[in-house]
Amino acid sequence: MRDNTFVLEETINALLESKKYSTLRDVLSTMNAADVAILFEEIPEDKLPLLFRLLPKELAAETFVEMDTDNQELLIRGFSDNELKEVVDELYVDDAADIVEEMPANVVKRILKQADPETRKMINEILNYPEDSAGSIMTTEYVSLRPKMTAEEAIKRIRRTGVDKETIYTCYVTQDDRTLIGYLSIKTLILSEEDDRIEDIMDSNIIAVRTTDDQEDVARMFSKYNFMALPVVDKEDRLVGIVTVDDAIDVLTEETTEDIEKMAAITPSEKPYLKTSVIETWKARMPWLLLLMISATFTGLIITKFETALAAQVALMSFVPMLMDTAGNSGSQASVTVIRGIALQEIGFVDFFKVVLKEARVSLICGATLAVVCFGKIMLVDHLLMHNPAVTAMVAFTVAVTLVLTIVCAKLVGCMLPMLAERLKLDPAVMASPFITTIVDAVSLLIYFKVATALLGL
Amino acid sequence: MRDNTFVLEETINALLESKKYSTLRDVLSTMNAADVAILFEEIPEDKLPLLFRLLPKELAAETFVEMDTDNQELLIRGFSDNELKEVVDELYVDDAADIVEEMPANVVKRILKQADPETRKMINEILNYPEDSAGSIMTTEYVSLRPKMTAEEAIKRIRRTGVDKETIYTCYVTQDDRTLIGYLSIKTLILSEEDDRIEDIMDSNIIAVRTTDDQEDVARMFSKYNFMALPVVDKEDRLVGIVTVDDAIDVLTEETTEDIEKMAAITPSEKPYLKTSVIETWKARMPWLLLLMISATFTGLIITKFETALAAQVALMSFVPMLMDTAGNSGSQASVTVIRGIALQEIGFVDFFKVVLKEARVSLICGATLAVVCFGKIMLVDHLLMHNPAVTAMVAFTVAVTLVLTIVCAKLVGCMLPMLAERLKLDPAVMASPFITTIVDAVSLLIYFKVATALLGL
Repeated sequence: MRDNTFVLEETINALLESKKYSTLRDVLSTMNAADVAILFEEIPEDKLPLLFRLLPKELAAETFVEMDTDNQELLIRGFSDNELKEVVDELYVDDAADIVEEMPANVVKRILKQADPETRKMINEILNYPEDSAGSIMTTEYVSLRPKMTAEEAIKRIRRTGVDKETIYTCYVTQDDRTLIGYLSIKTLILSEEDDRIEDIMDSNIIAVRTTDDQEDVARMFSKYNFMALPVVDKEDRLVGIVTVDDAIDVLTEETTEDIEKMAAITPSEKPYLKTSVIETWKARMPWLLLLMISATFTGLIITKFETALAAQVALMSFVPMLMDTAGNSGSQASVTVIRGIALQEIGFVDFFKVVLKEARVSLICGATLAVVCFGKIMLVDHLLMHNPAVTAMVAFTVAVTLVLTIVCAKLVGCMLPMLAERLKLDPAVMASPFITTIVDAVSLLIYFKVATALLGL
Repeated sequence: MRDNTFVLEETINALLESKKYSTLRDVLSTMNAADVAILFEEIPEDKLPLLFRLLPKELAAETFVEMDTDNQELLIRGFSDNELKEVVDELYVDDAADIVEEMPANVVKRILKQADPETRKMINEILNYPEDSAGSIMTTEYVSLRPKMTAEEAIKRIRRTGVDKETIYTCYVTQDDRTLIGYLSIKTLILSEEDDRIEDIMDSNIIAVRTTDDQEDVARMFSKYNFMALPVVDKEDRLVGIVTVDDAIDVLTEETTEDIEKMAAITPSEKPYLKTSVIETWKARMPWLLLLMISATFTGLIITKFETALAAQVALMSFVPMLMDTAGNSGSQASVTVIRGIALQEIGFVDFFKVVLKEARVSLICGATLAVVCFGKIMLVDHLLMHNPAVTAMVAFTVAVTLVLTIVCAKLVGCMLPMLAERLKLDPAVMASPFITTIVDAVSLLIYFKVATALLGL
């Protein structure tokens, strides 16, 4: 995909050099907004305004929405007031609000000045909702119908007002006070008789979200119910906007990336990796590495405590990395499974004992299998093959017993912490590998030395 | 959410006990298919057929699609041939194909026998495409129009044939030989004049996928282009089906879960966690734990090799877990970031040197920061506070130098392996924490002992 962009980029550059503007316009017009935006990222900044002006009006607005913030700002700063007004007029209100949110104050002022008063009011309304809430991702442009209308009147109304609406696929039925009382798809409308009343053909089992609902919960509802759009209501059940499925997909992708980053001990960032500066990446990763490094002090203390015993049995030390890694991996498997289950709303705190019981059983048979293999491997490789006299059958047995105990502990810690975090309204995603590993390392070292003391009489 | 399900469950059970079937039907009719399916999972199996028969026909079919495979099979086995036919007739072809794919052979035979010949043919067609391909998730029910039709004729055609089509929001324009030449949204159709010709109002910049394209790539196109549906064409550019946005969301969620599972060293499973048996979970996790445990043998060998040196300087051992963990965490941060970037198509192999350069710079400043803090901590806590005579300034310096070197190695390994995997058409997601940790552990131990030998003259 990227390679094609390169070829295209060269073609565009060649056309620009030879000033074949009408050919350029024709080429760009055949493209999709998302592709134009990707192309624009690869084009030298100084040629951007010229190219953008070649785009047909509607494509220009769509492309503008898809571009990254830096390029948007660059263009706005170069726009005349008239040009800016043209673009702003073509934007959907929720896209305009997204853009305004990212721009520096002086650019925001210019945009709002060019928007007509109605649009300005709507943009400000959306901006007032808390970040990550349904209100902040909704659009206030939707089709609303009245219960007493006929299907024919409804279609006429859509034809009259529909051009500006982001989606007309789902229409919402409201009373005079804007209370939402039903909805129907354009499919129902087209397939019904001309004189059918809206209230008779609408679906009144409304599933709506509140302006303050979390955007991730809202997005998950799309994958649960297969909707094209979800209505957003205020505290009095009055319709204030809709969230469309394309925005829901973006939210799902964003929130999953955030979860994955948190699971890897990185502070989430909204920028793509290649757009983030070295310092920003450092800032996102450093605090976690620092915290985890300091926490690892405990494992050091444990080793120091058993130092004298270890000096006598240095062979024991060689199994420490394997024990710690296996315990860490076992714990991560459990924690990551539970974290994802919570994110997909398959697992909740109510399932606590079910999950713990299951992990206990899984960890016992995992531990037993690994212990048998490990005992065999130590006896075969370290004892027989490498003739290491310090590695006796008793040492192998010590390692095997430790393995079972640490795996059980690791999986239990791994499955319980995310559920507890969820219960305490903390973010379960933080309870993943790095965090679990740090705890599990200390626990497995303690178990190891205790078992060794008991079995080998250190 | 789950708690509400419990209340509802009790109500339903009470109504069932007192045989208030018409009340039950009314209650169920107000519900959404996805919610009914969730409710059915909590209801005792023997009551399921009775409850299902209470559902209105259309809701029954929709609920059936949303139910888990076990419940679907249970119901089908209890259905009379007539009942089965009624459900199959109401299903969309792609949903029917999904269900058929999961059922045992004798149930499949019964389903296909009840489907009408046309449907049977379409189901078989979809089943013939490779798993995870666009063909396997598409539906063959779509609205197709001809270029010479007028808008009015088109709307009439949709009214006549649209009831059975999964989505009518996007209509596809084909020639007589089924070659796809354009598309238009129902919005365009409704907003245009009655005598506008389809070929004049359609968009001919077609973005289509092939039947054999990977389903994840197809799903990602939805988040790139904000489509409601994507046309699927064969090798001769003939339209054979469409993929709808709701299926794309399911694919995105599924594929992301798979990636996350692979990153945690778990063989992906399609079943939700709580539905998987202990043995299945064991099978999914065991091979990886085993592989990683065996790989950890190398770290053991390295420690054994330096055993004599270690016996003289046991204090060095106490920093091993911290060094290994920090290196592992640093490597994971890089690998997970790159893996996600590849999945979102933000990073490709063409960016190899850009990424490596960036990680080199990030790792140098991360390493330097951590080394300074670590040196300070060791001197303050271990040396001054704990009066550990073995921990000299030189030991602290050895640990700090090792930290810088291991972090640089870890981040470079972490960022390079996923990109190389991508290049070799392997799955980048496998190159995450557990795998990286195992490599990085061995590397950091080697570095540690080399630095210690050089600086402390072991």
